[in-house]
Amino acid sequence: MVSSSSSADGLPPLPAALIDALLAEDVPFGDLTTRVLGIGGQPGVMIFSARDDQVACGVEDAAALLVRLGATVDVLWSSGRHAPPGTPLLRATGPAGVLHMGWKTAQTLMEWAAGIATATHAIVSAATSGGAVAGTVAVACTRKAPPLTRALAMRAVVAGGGVMHRIGLSETILIFPEHLVFLNPRDGLAHAVRAARGKAPERRIVVEVTDVEQAVAAARAGADILQLEKFPVEDVVRLVERVMSLSPRPRLAAAGGINARNVAGYVAAGVDLVVTSAPYSAPPRDVQVELRPL
Amino acid sequence: MVSSSSSADGLPPLPAALIDALLAEDVPFGDLTTRVLGIGGQPGVMIFSARDDQVACGVEDAAALLVRLGATVDVLWSSGRHAPPGTPLLRATGPAGVLHMGWKTAQTLMEWAAGIATATHAIVSAATSGGAVAGTVAVACTRKAPPLTRALAMRAVVAGGGVMHRIGLSETILIFPEHLVFLNPRDGLAHAVRAARGKAPERRIVVEVTDVEQAVAAARAGADILQLEKFPVEDVVRLVERVMSLSPRPRLAAAGGINARNVAGYVAAGVDLVVTSAPYSAPPRDVQVELRPL
Amino acid sequence: MVSSSSSADGLPPLPAALIDALLAEDVPFGDLTTRVLGIGGQPGVMIFSARDDQVACGVEDAAALLVRLGATVDVLWSSGRHAPPGTPLLRATGPAGVLHMGWKTAQTLMEWAAGIATATHAIVSAATSGGAVAGTVAVACTRKAPPLTRALAMRAVVAGGGVMHRIGLSETILIFPEHLVFLNPRDGLAHAVRAARGKAPERRIVVEVTDVEQAVAAARAGADILQLEKFPVEDVVRLVERVMSLSPRPRLAAAGGINARNVAGYVAAGVDLVVTSAPYSAPPRDVQVELRPL
Amino acid sequence: MVSSSSSADGLPPLPAALIDALLAEDVPFGDLTTRVLGIGGQPGVMIFSARDDQVACGVEDAAALLVRLGATVDVLWSSGRHAPPGTPLLRATGPAGVLHMGWKTAQTLMEWAAGIATATHAIVSAATSGGAVAGTVAVACTRKAPPLTRALAMRAVVAGGGVMHRIGLSETILIFPEHLVFLNPRDGLAHAVRAARGKAPERRIVVEVTDVEQAVAAARAGADILQLEKFPVEDVVRLVERVMSLSPRPRLAAAGGINARNVAGYVAAGVDLVVTSAPYSAPPRDVQVELRPL
Amino acid sequence: MVSSSSSADGLPPLPAALIDALLAEDVPFGDLTTRVLGIGGQPGVMIFSARDDQVACGVEDAAALLVRLGATVDVLWSSGRHAPPGTPLLRATGPAGVLHMGWKTAQTLMEWAAGIATATHAIVSAATSGGAVAGTVAVACTRKAPPLTRALAMRAVVAGGGVMHRIGLSETILIFPEHLVFLNPRDGLAHAVRAARGKAPERRIVVEVTDVEQAVAAARAGADILQLEKFPVEDVVRLVERVMSLSPRPRLAAAGGINARNVAGYVAAGVDLVVTSAPYSAPPRDVQVELRPL
Amino acid sequence: MVSSSSSADGLPPLPAALIDALLAEDVPFGDLTTRVLGIGGQPGVMIFSARDDQVACGVEDAAALLVRLGATVDVLWSSGRHAPPGTPLLRATGPAGVLHMGWKTAQTLMEWAAGIATATHAIVSAATSGGAVAGTVAVACTRKAPPLTRALAMRAVVAGGGVMHRIGLSETILIFPEHLVFLNPRDGLAHAVRAARGKAPERRIVVEVTDVEQAVAAARAGADILQLEKFPVEDVVRLVERVMSLSPRPRLAAAGGINARNVAGYVAAGVDLVVTSAPYSAPPRDVQVELRPL
Repeated sequence: MVSSSSSADGLPPLPAALIDALLAEDVPFGDLTTRVLGIGGQPGVMIFSARDDQVACGVEDAAALLVRLGATVDVLWSSGRHAPPGTPLLRATGPAGVLHMGWKTAQTLMEWAAGIATATHAIVSAATSGGAVAGTVAVACTRKAPPLTRALAMRAVVAGGGVMHRIGLSETILIFPEHLVFLNPRDGLAHAVRAARGKAPERRIVVEVTDVEQAVAAARAGADILQLEKFPVEDVVRLVERVMSLSPRPRLAAAGGINARNVAGYVAAGVDLVVTSAPYSAPPRDVQVELRPL
Repeated sequence: MVSSSSSADGLPPLPAALIDALLAEDVPFGDLTTRVLGIGGQPGVMIFSARDDQVACGVEDAAALLVRLGATVDVLWSSGRHAPPGTPLLRATGPAGVLHMGWKTAQTLMEWAAGIATATHAIVSAATSGGAVAGTVAVACTRKAPPLTRALAMRAVVAGGGVMHRIGLSETILIFPEHLVFLNPRDGLAHAVRAARGKAPERRIVVEVTDVEQAVAAARAGADILQLEKFPVEDVVRLVERVMSLSPRPRLAAAGGINARNVAGYVAAGVDLVVTSAPYSAPPRDVQVELRPL
Repeated sequence: MVSSSSSADGLPPLPAALIDALLAEDVPFGDLTTRVLGIGGQPGVMIFSARDDQVACGVEDAAALLVRLGATVDVLWSSGRHAPPGTPLLRATGPAGVLHMGWKTAQTLMEWAAGIATATHAIVSAATSGGAVAGTVAVACTRKAPPLTRALAMRAVVAGGGVMHRIGLSETILIFPEHLVFLNPRDGLAHAVRAARGKAPERRIVVEVTDVEQAVAAARAGADILQLEKFPVEDVVRLVERVMSLSPRPRLAAAGGINARNVAGYVAAGVDLVVTSAPYSAPPRDVQVELRPL
Repeated sequence: MVSSSSSADGLPPLPAALIDALLAEDVPFGDLTTRVLGIGGQPGVMIFSARDDQVACGVEDAAALLVRLGATVDVLWSSGRHAPPGTPLLRATGPAGVLHMGWKTAQTLMEWAAGIATATHAIVSAATSGGAVAGTVAVACTRKAPPLTRALAMRAVVAGGGVMHRIGLSETILIFPEHLVFLNPRDGLAHAVRAARGKAPERRIVVEVTDVEQAVAAARAGADILQLEKFPVEDVVRLVERVMSLSPRPRLAAAGGINARNVAGYVAAGVDLVVTSAPYSAPPRDVQVELRPL
Repeated sequence: MVSSSSSADGLPPLPAALIDALLAEDVPFGDLTTRVLGIGGQPGVMIFSARDDQVACGVEDAAALLVRLGATVDVLWSSGRHAPPGTPLLRATGPAGVLHMGWKTAQTLMEWAAGIATATHAIVSAATSGGAVAGTVAVACTRKAPPLTRALAMRAVVAGGGVMHRIGLSETILIFPEHLVFLNPRDGLAHAVRAARGKAPERRIVVEVTDVEQAVAAARAGADILQLEKFPVEDVVRLVERVMSLSPRPRLAAAGGINARNVAGYVAAGVDLVVTSAPYSAPPRDVQVELRPL
Repeated sequence: MVSSSSSADGLPPLPAALIDALLAEDVPFGDLTTRVLGIGGQPGVMIFSARDDQVACGVEDAAALLVRLGATVDVLWSSGRHAPPGTPLLRATGPAGVLHMGWKTAQTLMEWAAGIATATHAIVSAATSGGAVAGTVAVACTRKAPPLTRALAMRAVVAGGGVMHRIGLSETILIFPEHLVFLNPRDGLAHAVRAARGKAPERRIVVEVTDVEQAVAAARAGADILQLEKFPVEDVVRLVERVMSLSPRPRLAAAGGINARNVAGYVAAGVDLVVTSAPYSAPPRDVQVELRPL
């Protein structure tokens, strides 16, 4: 079962400029084909349906785009809901010129967003398939969405039941080895963690580590969360034993190559969350469009 | 062999607003981690290299982004060139705070763009693998890039040796069945093609068809190009025989499900170009980043 | 008779940012005069009418602008329709402060757009005045609209019955002599046309020529369209004889100095289309505005 | 003699977004023709010269645009200077791909701006041709530039020796009859002028009048400037006699149909300034471009 | 008594991009807290009231912002009206996710704007407290609003009964000593004033002066308005005597350190207007927000 | 002692569009006064110095703005450094027209930013005046900066030694009572905290409380940080006793009315950080500008 609609998720509407940008990249001056055929004024209807099984996504945003063009729109299925093949998602009526202007932009948006939402949901489902209680392990998606798509990609991640690992660099702390190389060599990681905590007492300190010994050292240095970069599952198991007695116990985040096939193993090994970029490379889901005179 | 650099391709520099938008989605207020560690002022160097085999892409754009942040940059490998694993692509120097701000945005841009360029190039190569002369069959990519990325995606398509099928709806003509349903039923396709040609004498008339009979009818109606939607190769063969004697002979474009594995078959069957969205779902190529004090 | 309204022409609504930009250049902080007189809250009505004979244009866009300011608006005459002197075009009601903010911006937009639409229509009419069948010769307007106005100018061209020659450089091919000077001298024009066709099989190849011999050579080199730059009519006649037997016969486009006075001669000589910048210098048509209390 | 360069005129550089907008409307993805011919990387030179007599304009802005594309540029003639036919204005060098991207946008900008500057200058010259001392009568251009071009148009007005009548509605006061109809009928114009002066003591009060009696009444009501809408010259003469003894004497601005042919008459009749929209409809001046390999 | 609502003041609606910018700086991806609690879909109501005595301001703009997010809104008190403590200003209903997204942005906007409006109004009131007739002395606010807030700040100034001294540098003339130092030393101020008047006959010439002698000299040189920078009140008194007999008498504007406590003294001394930046540093007024389920 | 320069703080350069927006609100068409005086081309120098004691701020941003206008600039004092009266901060040379365009915008930016930085620094200093070790108590500034200024305000906060409490609503969690009223009444706060933690394992859970009992309950419910809204110092003392034995002990953040006068009391009482909006209402610091011919 997939969670609720995007409005219930407290996401803001797409900015007017973003909708205009979507239209500008596809139809800056309308559909030339419609115009040369002289059919722009004919009334029509356009229905979007799921062609393959998917978590519907982008439906409300596609609706906003079609409304902007002048169509009358009904959202038939909320983003975030599981849509079996054939499910009607959206219905728009208006002049053929309007429908043809919005057709492919709306379809591509929905297909691409559903691809990410469905892939995210698959990892969420797989994470709990081994018996873990739903909601105890978070699936956090990275910043590696295609350039310029972060605002849209995050809506799809949330629709799929995932959360955002970090939205950007400016409000969260993640100490990479690439940060540590710039520290004064006399100062160790514990010094760095203390500095970070003093300057940012309201943020958790996440430290990326690449092997068990580093992880244990980071835990002792006071990291709140250990981000385990490309750890084999057996290393996670070993690490859990080593840190479980610490108080407070650091949380463990598995990252690097996590996907729907291997996530259950990491969950069983005891991580608190997984961090993944996999949904951003998921192929789009198919959304079928029927467009005809009214 | 992959073609030339993006400047030679006559592509404009990224607009200032696009570079600022890339930065704004990742580092609106700088890298908090750098700041709390107090390392922002340390001089450093950052080197991007190809980790796996790829057509390099986005290198000049990543350079522009890093320059905008205040780094000094050398482009070591042009976009559009084949880069074997280990090839250094880009080198940037500057304060650690600057390098950390640009690191992942530059890397994600290059990885994503190289994914599209490499996948496009694979189709281009496969298209000629059966003996076809390079350059006689064009690989045209569709409008189905992720939302908001068309300007960036097109640069990657060109870097990979492909061309754009249509940039948008406003300068090219493609008559879909979804257009024809709005025509006056007394008027046939020939009437529509004539109307289109009269109104847009400088554009080719492309007609999407879904079976051989439709294709032959469209050819007779005067279409310049037949876009063959999901034709099996054997139908292409049959169609070629039927239209080859027409003068002028319409060009044939295979579309729908074309990829590097099946493209050679279509080329052998006689199409003049293939139309594909496949590169947009290609996984990013890996770009390794080394970041260290100078 | 002038063609249909802009919505039937499949043109997108003006982007929100474009409307805001129109307002920002004239009333960034409202009408100071209204404010110092303290009359902003009085209800009023504002009626726009054609003062001289014109093809109405910009009416729907002016309406969108006035709605954005808070007025209630009726479009009384569609863009693209012939409006004799005195024809009411648009009616807006609202507080005097709102009407005064929008008055001149709406009026200037309509007057300027009607100037282009009317001038375009005059060329379209003249083109067929010699007996040519309407629709067989296209009037194509160039890219030479005033800077920043292309999106608006094109709407006016379409309203006047014209078409766009090229919207920009990125989707159409026009080989100028200024391109040819950069070719390898061993390669002739035929080589260039072949290269262009291979790389852009879905576009027509247009070649600009400046005399009959060049034109014949370009035709033999395979150009789809010959753009005849400043050809005297008698040269067009001579050229038609020379190329008429070619198969496929290239289309002929007359360009450079074409206007309503001389277009019929070119049409009679046998060109397939004319390319003109003349409408962009047409003086605005007069739109009268009556503004009074309600 | 035409005044100085635009930098000396204290005009700001074009905003980055405006330059990008100029490029985006013409070359969103580069020059396709250059790309398909494979000539983008050839070094070249492009020289802009005045073809007909003109006040050069837009030269620095065109230079900024070409620099933005990557060209190396020399400004050879400042905006605002008289350029006889053949005068070289601007020289750019760079790869052919870069030059072809900027060619027409730069040329159209310079031609359009020179059209306005030259026409403005013609009115300025004519205004003093009857013996008036240069600088004693200002030529003020209205807000009626083509939509979206005000920032560019004003630069051309200044280059031509004119001034801006009003940049917009928000910082100057001009009481139209269309304002007065909303006043309480018991309050006369004197009341309105007093109200305006109290609320805006740092602005002049301009009142539009349409006949001599209205003008005298407005003068007595305290208007600082009378804007004489479509007054015949003889009415101006009559008005001057009527108001010349008032202290302070209101200034007189002739507006409506003023152009280079009739301006001297108004000046001789005694107006202090003329207000005109005529330069905005002036045809562009010709700028010749030579583009060749280096 | 404070004047009327912002719509009666003839101010334009906030541009769509400005509203989106306000939201983008606070809730780019919605309220994470709402989302993790899963309460986004609960219907709720949000009521804004004045907590302390204030001139209400920003109410209509906050309403536009909440409508943009999807709330249903009632404006209960117009901007520009005096609101005693407890006055309900605005009521919004909608899903909790929507209300939480808009809460603080709307509140901060109203509090900040009310701070400026209330402080402006205090100066306006104090200016007339000594018996001066309301409306005879203008309170003009400077350009020194916080960066990027000028459009919003001006609305608050107007709501408080003030006027704008200058919106920017491009439509008004204020000669600073820093301008005069660049003049040719042989030319005196009178020359400068004459030059300014000739080039800008529709603008008043304001000259900043820093002592009585400079002021008298500027008056004799023809300045329309003397801007008295940091004049003690007694110097204003002395100056009034010196310039009162000039015809036309220049207006006097007191500037530099003017506030509600000292304004009456300047008014009594005879200035025509005061110029102040004080309201921009006023602390925000408190607006209380009640947010609960419906 | 105030910390380092903004580049060392890892803050990104101002976006090009933000600099253009700063200029557009003050000098959309240049300085009219400079132009009418004809002095725009004279070479000049402009020096900015601290007039009163301050933490310099906005210097690099003002420099970027002046460079954008065409000036040559030296930054003489880094943002974030203490500048005693008379300290030269910035030096710019260029034509008088350029200097006059940038003067007040640069000055207002620096004065306003220095106001915030200096006020922030005063709280930081006061926090440690009672003997607390610098860096052990963070001064966190709220989201209540004037509308649209957040990006600029944060730079000033950091320059003053403060940190951002939250940049926005989308990456941090702060449970207000206004969230809790929407929860299912059967679920208590502990349930809410658990839900939040499960969905956002990488974020701290901050809970706003308004009295000691609420605070203790929130601590027991698992809150990471208690935000103590308007707690008297003695209540903080009492609370510390109550929660000190909890493991992990929640952190305490004092909020509401904190300023330089009362902060030491809260620190002495044992809070881990203070949250304040006070710096945003600080009056600007004075920056003196000398502008003269070169």
